Amino acid sequence: MVSKENPRPGGRSARVQAAVHQAVRDMLAGMNRADVTIPLIAQRANVTPSTIYRRWGDLQELLADVAASRLQPETEPPKTGSARNDLQAWAEQYADEMSSGAGRQMIRDVLAVSDTANAEKCCIYTQQQLRVLVARADERGEAFPTLTELMDYVVSPIMYRILFDQVPSNDCVRGLISRVMPENTD
Amino acid sequence: MVSKENPRPGGRSARVQAAVHQAVRDMLAGMNRADVTIPLIAQRANVTPSTIYRRWGDLQELLADVAASRLQPETEPPKTGSARNDLQAWAEQYADEMSSGAGRQMIRDVLAVSDTANAEKCCIYTQQQLRVLVARADERGEAFPTLTELMDYVVSPIMYRILFDQVPSNDCVRGLISRVMPENTD
Repeated sequence: MVSKENPRPGGRSARVQAAVHQAVRDMLAGMNRADVTIPLIAQRANVTPSTIYRRWGDLQELLADVAASRLQPETEPPKTGSARNDLQAWAEQYADEMSSGAGRQMIRDVLAVSDTANAEKCCIYTQQQLRVLVARADERGEAFPTLTELMDYVVSPIMYRILFDQVPSNDCVRGLISRVMPENTD
Repeated sequence: MVSKENPRPGGRSARVQAAVHQAVRDMLAGMNRADVTIPLIAQRANVTPSTIYRRWGDLQELLADVAASRLQPETEPPKTGSARNDLQAWAEQYADEMSSGAGRQMIRDVLAVSDTANAEKCCIYTQQQLRVLVARADERGEAFPTLTELMDYVVSPIMYRILFDQVPSNDCVRGLISRVMPENTD
């Protein structure tokens, strides 16, 4: 069971979600992961354990939900002056974040559950960031890959390498970008 | 801790590994996953629990090791008569297997642990299969993508879609192949 995407802001549901998420984040930051349990989270968030069980089902689902919301970017991709450099800066940062210890743990949490809703959220967040870059290039009249090309040929190889192979270097990321965006179209 | 890749065949180490892996496979096939524990696995494999703890560290590491060996293909990619069709048949089967319930569970097990050795094994198995296709195309003198192109632009988008988005259709897989292998080079 996954918590509702958008509980009514300020409603009880949103307050419970915020309190429980915050409790999980605090506990993961300060405790051994194996010691984090639903009763302890409930105590810290000042809700009953059954509230958590009812809403998230189990600890794994709650951790996946918290991880997905931590993976939601808080800002738009930085502007560097050109569409190509924006993409390069974004992709290098994405590779850095996802391959960091914290990034890997969040991906593990998101993928650890059989419900794919939180994994899909991560994909949507990434697409939202890339859509900003596509729109920016469009406004500037610069040639730019499509969203699908970016997902398939830049994001996917970065993520596959992080999960199953070696962390991609910045050179590798630049090589992936060159493939969908040859130098002469910039 | 990950078990040795190649224990000496017939040695005690290989016998223990085979017995423990078989016990895990049998138990996963017949029991609720949450009820599978190291003491029960040890009993069924006729080894001591400490043998398992010493070799694999914990249950998650053991499950990751078993999942990785189940993901090792037992046969070469089927021959269909052309390099393109071989690749297409292989990629469609790969997408099918990895997106099946059993495939997803094995990927989850492999990615659930912080040690990346088993995830890297999966990548190596996939590369071994693709190397067979590359060598076959080479023998036939047919144009064919490189191993890196196949990993980045066919395998990675298939895996990303399975993990974070929608399972790729056969049409989608064919589209990925067309990108690295335009029709007129076949």
